[in-house]
Amino acid sequence: MAGETIITVVGNLTADPELRYTQNGLPVANFTIASTPRTFDRQANEWKDGEALFLRASVWRDFAEHVAGSLTKGMRVIATGRLKQRSYQDREGNNRTAIELEVDEIGPSLRYATAQVTRTSGGGGQSRQQVADEPWATPGSSNAGGASADAWSAPGAYGDDTPF
Amino acid sequence: MAGETIITVVGNLTADPELRYTQNGLPVANFTIASTPRTFDRQANEWKDGEALFLRASVWRDFAEHVAGSLTKGMRVIATGRLKQRSYQDREGNNRTAIELEVDEIGPSLRYATAQVTRTSGGGGQSRQQVADEPWATPGSSNAGGASADAWSAPGAYGDDTPF
Amino acid sequence: MAGETIITVVGNLTADPELRYTQNGLPVANFTIASTPRTFDRQANEWKDGEALFLRASVWRDFAEHVAGSLTKGMRVIATGRLKQRSYQDREGNNRTAIELEVDEIGPSLRYATAQVTRTSGGGGQSRQQVADEPWATPGSSNAGGASADAWSAPGAYGDDTPF
Amino acid sequence: MAGETIITVVGNLTADPELRYTQNGLPVANFTIASTPRTFDRQANEWKDGEALFLRASVWRDFAEHVAGSLTKGMRVIATGRLKQRSYQDREGNNRTAIELEVDEIGPSLRYATAQVTRTSGGGGQSRQQVADEPWATPGSSNAGGASADAWSAPGAYGDDTPF
Repeated sequence: MAGETIITVVGNLTADPELRYTQNGLPVANFTIASTPRTFDRQANEWKDGEALFLRASVWRDFAEHVAGSLTKGMRVIATGRLKQRSYQDREGNNRTAIELEVDEIGPSLRYATAQVTRTSGGGGQSRQQVADEPWATPGSSNAGGASADAWSAPGAYGDDTPF
Repeated sequence: MAGETIITVVGNLTADPELRYTQNGLPVANFTIASTPRTFDRQANEWKDGEALFLRASVWRDFAEHVAGSLTKGMRVIATGRLKQRSYQDREGNNRTAIELEVDEIGPSLRYATAQVTRTSGGGGQSRQQVADEPWATPGSSNAGGASADAWSAPGAYGDDTPF
Repeated sequence: MAGETIITVVGNLTADPELRYTQNGLPVANFTIASTPRTFDRQANEWKDGEALFLRASVWRDFAEHVAGSLTKGMRVIATGRLKQRSYQDREGNNRTAIELEVDEIGPSLRYATAQVTRTSGGGGQSRQQVADEPWATPGSSNAGGASADAWSAPGAYGDDTPF
Repeated sequence: MAGETIITVVGNLTADPELRYTQNGLPVANFTIASTPRTFDRQANEWKDGEALFLRASVWRDFAEHVAGSLTKGMRVIATGRLKQRSYQDREGNNRTAIELEVDEIGPSLRYATAQVTRTSGGGGQSRQQVADEPWATPGSSNAGGASADAWSAPGAYGDDTPF
């Protein structure tokens, strides 16, 4: 896929992720990230909360189960993915659009938390057959992590050139 | 701070983070993220690894201790922050520059892993006095999460408007 | 401002920008960017258009007049800014939300076009007094370009260290 | 291509772009973008320049000629692309690495300038045969704009749903 609109969001989950399964048994998790900017008020000499951005997000396959099993309401997360637009009809029959985040990567932020991480076996291998089942499947991004997963047993000495 | 170059990186840690303390006792963690892109080779009909990008990264204060206590060599992470350039002299006395990531948020990716998350008490409050101790301190970003941390006990019903 | 959701969008203007003035005489330009991703269809061995993302955008002050005087319907642009959410009531009185881009920088893409660029005099200096007039004003970002504008007469020799 | 590190940079060109041609006649333009962040100094109650980031960038094919024909030293630009790392040997024979931006989109910023834009004929069609000639070719990104170019004659009514 090329020419997609990539975005990174940092915020708190407004509720536990909802895990569901498509008719073909493909897991999908949905949740909303609330991202609150802050402005420094020079008069008051303090930081003040701005208006929050609420972004609806979804994640698929094994990844969805990892999210549903790890993240809960209120947790601060960092997520990156592709911004997507959906058309739908509201109850009055009007055509409406909604903007959502199709998550490529997400994790709990370690800014105010620690995490005990457990690698899952298997990686994305098996679920690659199921790509056609996902409405917004992008061959590239859905397999994006495969290479890095193989590199989990990380190589030896990197960055010897860097003096820091 | 305004006009900074923001970047999001997904990749694997090439080694455990190194945790050190400044003379004033401020914690800092350094590590390298290896990000490997993949290209689909149409001739071979398969994905192939591209050349990895190795990005040196640093994180400060309590956040540094969370990172050092949670992330280990080989883990896949998602990180966002500001790209910084440093000048230094190599052993031959030549002036050189290096590009680094000043991390604003980082967490373990849940694509191939699960995480058990523990919120730390206190938030960023106490360490705000120490901002002047950090070479690249940016008042905005260093406190960036405070608001959201306060919102950890998340509000009630969001997004009722959204039909998904 | 800290903790904002930054986004970069590449796409085509769906119409000429609309230039208006607030009651205090502050210029604002509004327009919509249509961003169309493409997927490579391996069966058909060709690229196919995905579903477009339509993002409403606004830009303020002198900058708005530059945009309205330079960009027209159909032009391919690159824009970066902050994602904002607005609440409003539709005709039936339902509460709705819309997501918009508060533009920090925008320009015509040179991928399929050339541009003859004319620097405007004055920079952002004068309009800084008017910041309070802008609903979503962020002191940092609204002045973000001032420094670089001062550097318009660029320094001498950079990057001597780089061998490329 | 998947899993690449995407970045957006705003800054000023440190010199005119250098346009060269590969042995196969493929145009390439190289230049450096200097991006200067600003911090608000609360003591002094004013904005101060931070340390600049200098990012070496390259752009290929017709696009390179558009850049070389449109942008000059000192101009403020907005660019987005993929961060790449190159290995090389310095004069002393040491192995070194450099980080560069492989530009996907670039244009003059309209913050302090206006632009008169001229669409070039042809689009990216012809140059698609030459992809193999480009060292860092990515089928997706090199053709990324084709779809949007076809949409240059923009469609009719968008965003009727949006009240703004």
